[in-house]
Amino acid sequence: MTGNGLFVTFEGGDGVGKTTQAALLEEWLTAEGSTVVRTREPGGTEVGLLVRDIVLHHRGEIAPRAEALLYAADRAHHIETVVRPALARGEVVIQDRYLDSSVAYQGAGRVLGRDEVRDLSLWATGGLLPDLTVLLDLDPGAARHRLDADDKPFDRLESEQDDFHSRVRAEFLALAAAEPDRFLVLDASRPAAELAADIRGRVGLLLR
Amino acid sequence: MTGNGLFVTFEGGDGVGKTTQAALLEEWLTAEGSTVVRTREPGGTEVGLLVRDIVLHHRGEIAPRAEALLYAADRAHHIETVVRPALARGEVVIQDRYLDSSVAYQGAGRVLGRDEVRDLSLWATGGLLPDLTVLLDLDPGAARHRLDADDKPFDRLESEQDDFHSRVRAEFLALAAAEPDRFLVLDASRPAAELAADIRGRVGLLLR
Repeated sequence: MTGNGLFVTFEGGDGVGKTTQAALLEEWLTAEGSTVVRTREPGGTEVGLLVRDIVLHHRGEIAPRAEALLYAADRAHHIETVVRPALARGEVVIQDRYLDSSVAYQGAGRVLGRDEVRDLSLWATGGLLPDLTVLLDLDPGAARHRLDADDKPFDRLESEQDDFHSRVRAEFLALAAAEPDRFLVLDASRPAAELAADIRGRVGLLLR
Repeated sequence: MTGNGLFVTFEGGDGVGKTTQAALLEEWLTAEGSTVVRTREPGGTEVGLLVRDIVLHHRGEIAPRAEALLYAADRAHHIETVVRPALARGEVVIQDRYLDSSVAYQGAGRVLGRDEVRDLSLWATGGLLPDLTVLLDLDPGAARHRLDADDKPFDRLESEQDDFHSRVRAEFLALAAAEPDRFLVLDASRPAAELAADIRGRVGLLLR
């Protein structure tokens, strides 16, 4: 489905270490001689940045289905113009967030149904699923502590938002349970070097 | 499905007289005491104009599915923020182009399947279909002659494009044949006043 390349996505809430692990995996793969494309959604293309701009900066409400369709448009363009060409060239694509994020966040938000969101993403991408999805699982309280420690700008979370992040975490875990072959679920509270070794182990198997 | 209001759409190629007939219908309905909302797709909302701007002015190709999703986003927002509220207030919505245009143009273009385009539109709008769709049917050659006569700016059409417009016309007629109760198909070469009378007759029945 993904040509000769390998499509690896990182999923999980904010602050779980996706960027760190993606960077460590890229470093290792490059040293091993692979050509790597690091990318992200939303906003991985010029069209995607324009779409993101509408969603984030429009004054006033955007209808929930319109928002879902805008994100799906970003995804459709990104997959067709960046990801599929790289996979066709036999490269490794490492992507921060993909359809599981859409399903987990929108499913947890309960505005649109999980299956609807998933079907929309699959239609947008011509049914492209990752070869491997690394889910970095972490208690939302611990993730929040990390973000605070990083001294990044961070809105004070209300208890309602804590509930939301707990639901997102549960959605991610349910998605992983439904597709155990595609997912590698890791306890993100473990040391980064250990996590990186586990990820290299799985990716190494897939590359062989 | 459309509350207490009435949802009327006008369909057909460029130059068939949709704007003229929509204006005549609005004039009559207003004189009769109805509250009318005249609108159009794409670009009937502020978000829609931003989306349209991406589709029309982005340098370089936009992936076909991304384009379809952007138009669907425009539609979702327009229906939720303009059309449904008007119908809920019991008003008459007269709209230039709706999902049949998407199906006819994209079906004729053959990049995406008709059913896919229709399903996407229906998902975007929560399944909203017009109470009445007036299809102004005209031979593409005659429509072109009218546009030339209007002295509007008009790109010279190649024979390939003539074929395209003939396919669009055939797609519209097939859609009308599949839903005879929703469609009123009129020969747009007839005098405008006669067409307007036929449209008033059908709308009058629906309002009673």
